[in-house]
Amino acid sequence: MKIYNFSAGPSILPQSTIENTAEAVKNFNGIGLSILEISHRSKDFQAVIDEAVALFKELLDIPEGYSVLFLGGGASMQFCMVPYNLLEKKAAYLNTGTWASKALKEAKLFGEIVEVASSKEALFNYIPKDYTVPADADYFHITTNNTIYGTEIRKDIDSPVPLVADMSSDIFSRPLDVSKYGLIYGGAQKNLAPAGVTFVIVKEELLGKVTRPIPTMLDYRTHIKEGSMFNTPPVLPIYSAMETLRWLKGLGGLAAMEKINLEKAALLYDAIDSSKIFTGTAKEEDRSIMNVCFVMKDEYKELEPEFQKFATERGMSGIKGHRSIGGFRASIYNAMPKSGVQALVDCMKEFERNH
Amino acid sequence: MKIYNFSAGPSILPQSTIENTAEAVKNFNGIGLSILEISHRSKDFQAVIDEAVALFKELLDIPEGYSVLFLGGGASMQFCMVPYNLLEKKAAYLNTGTWASKALKEAKLFGEIVEVASSKEALFNYIPKDYTVPADADYFHITTNNTIYGTEIRKDIDSPVPLVADMSSDIFSRPLDVSKYGLIYGGAQKNLAPAGVTFVIVKEELLGKVTRPIPTMLDYRTHIKEGSMFNTPPVLPIYSAMETLRWLKGLGGLAAMEKINLEKAALLYDAIDSSKIFTGTAKEEDRSIMNVCFVMKDEYKELEPEFQKFATERGMSGIKGHRSIGGFRASIYNAMPKSGVQALVDCMKEFERNH
Ligand SMILES: Cc1ncc(COP(=O)(O)O)c(C=O)c1O
Ligand SMILES: Cc1ncc(COP(=O)(O)O)c(C=O)c1O
Ligand SMILES: [Mg+2]
Ligand SMILES: [Mg+2]
Ligand SMILES: [Mg+2]
Ligand SMILES: [Mg+2]
Repeated sequence: MKIYNFSAGPSILPQSTIENTAEAVKNFNGIGLSILEISHRSKDFQAVIDEAVALFKELLDIPEGYSVLFLGGGASMQFCMVPYNLLEKKAAYLNTGTWASKALKEAKLFGEIVEVASSKEALFNYIPKDYTVPADADYFHITTNNTIYGTEIRKDIDSPVPLVADMSSDIFSRPLDVSKYGLIYGGAQKNLAPAGVTFVIVKEELLGKVTRPIPTMLDYRTHIKEGSMFNTPPVLPIYSAMETLRWLKGLGGLAAMEKINLEKAALLYDAIDSSKIFTGTAKEEDRSIMNVCFVMKDEYKELEPEFQKFATERGMSGIKGHRSIGGFRASIYNAMPKSGVQALVDCMKEFERNH
Repeated sequence: MKIYNFSAGPSILPQSTIENTAEAVKNFNGIGLSILEISHRSKDFQAVIDEAVALFKELLDIPEGYSVLFLGGGASMQFCMVPYNLLEKKAAYLNTGTWASKALKEAKLFGEIVEVASSKEALFNYIPKDYTVPADADYFHITTNNTIYGTEIRKDIDSPVPLVADMSSDIFSRPLDVSKYGLIYGGAQKNLAPAGVTFVIVKEELLGKVTRPIPTMLDYRTHIKEGSMFNTPPVLPIYSAMETLRWLKGLGGLAAMEKINLEKAALLYDAIDSSKIFTGTAKEEDRSIMNVCFVMKDEYKELEPEFQKFATERGMSGIKGHRSIGGFRASIYNAMPKSGVQALVDCMKEFERNH
């Protein structure tokens, strides 16, 4: 049976990324060594990280003055690295979910934090739009895609102060205007790579302004200076990221990718909206095209475990909703083919016919 | 041609680790998904991390009261995490090389540092033994194997204060008396796994004593509480680590491993000591059994580039010495078979006969 991976992250990757990584584990570049055992200082690996950085810049059309970094520690490490490097006195945070809340909590160790708005009272089912960012904040932090709640900020907003964005779960899902951001980061384990590498896109001129001493490994300038090779980087995850970026480019880049993502999302949301038993949890205008959250309507609520079992038996893997909202979550990242979304929709319709 | 990987790290791994990781990238546990794309919260991965922790405890005979963690960021991140968590006022450091110096430098951000001894004046070619650790230090930090200089502390020393050891390049090379240590850490990319995962063995009772606030991700207690799953851990590197630990156990554990390592090291050091053109750089009594550093004697010095080429052409990969001491370095980690060391020795002898 074909398994469709709807996991929220680590999550589905392009078939070419998986196949070429498997080959590189056996014999990297035909040099007779595994990607698992090659020196990060070898010219073969230097070529990999150089290509990954170049493809980041090309696909996202990153302007001059920004650096692309590959670090360890996960997006969660960025929750403290961002304020360590950028927060002198005050920062503004938009609270749109669990991850946004965690980022905000961490920043409180470093200075005054203004929560400009929060949708917590509505279980984060929408993106607040009516707020003011203090003009004297060192930066404004947003979470563009709220993985757990299925809401997304899908346009590049204007901010009066440097904009910092956690794009863990929607980077590369659409073209970006990077010039509107001061720093973009994310765990790469959704749209890009296996778990173990974190990407950072940072506008260099923002750095070096805080007065606190910064431990070497937590200072972005260390990694900029050494091209992400101050110490041993996560070699294999970076290799796989490069493979995914090649796949994205081959597909036609981010405009082409966005078109496919919009089609996939429409297919699934249409099925939800026209269903007698399922209903979406996120406010329509803020729906994510990456994580689609839905539950059973009240009168069918007790069927949820049955659908979970039904869908799992038909190869739908990872569709259980996050414990904080329950129901179902289908993560339809870049690598999920339209046929996978169709298979899920068919499964929902079949279940519905039976009830 | 068979390639022998003498790289200092990332470095050679057991063939079974490489083959089984390649298989898991294609189809993990036969579940129809790749290890690259499975959720770290899946029961299949939970079993992997549980087994890796259990094998750590079994092979190193770790006593009660210690936790084993798998983190991101590399050993270099531990250079700041250790003082963040353990240094209230004063700590003692033994300076035996580049890595020890970097650890010491980082700790200075957090309190008073006493360098109890240093072999810097002799280009770190020996381990100082005549020093006193202040009884009021919060901990004493050592680097058991100095990867760059080929010196090693091969017995568990006694310390009047909690002993912290960077064992990046000799963990699992011999049995340890873990009870003599407060904390052991290392990048796993030498004897254990591909790059991207860092191990920490920590005595829990040492934690929670410093007064500074600690960012969540930098606090060992976060990771102890969540079993290294506070956030997404480096899934594939942990899988490979588990495979290497299985291999080690199958070999008979650390006593068996040490015996093999001693034989391999003796083979290579004997060749160096009986050579008319090569000479070792580390003081005999402090020689590492993991990284064997040697140069050409003064009268043959100009032959170094020729030997480099000669050996490379015969499949010896990664034997160039670190730029800070030059010459050659053969890293003969656990996974390097005796036949590999023999191949290098043969190569040295053949070169010698030709000159
Ligand atoms: C939006 C967002 N931010 C941060 C994180 C945390 O990432 P990591 O596990 O790499 O620390 C996640 C993980 O799912 C996420 O979805
Ligand atoms: C003894 C020792 N400590 C620390 C490090 C740094 O490790 P990482 O690159 O994982 O930060 C190394 C790397 O070679 C090492 O050999
Ligand atoms: Mg969220
Ligand atoms: Mg290294
Ligand atoms: Mg060293
Ligand atoms: Mg995650």
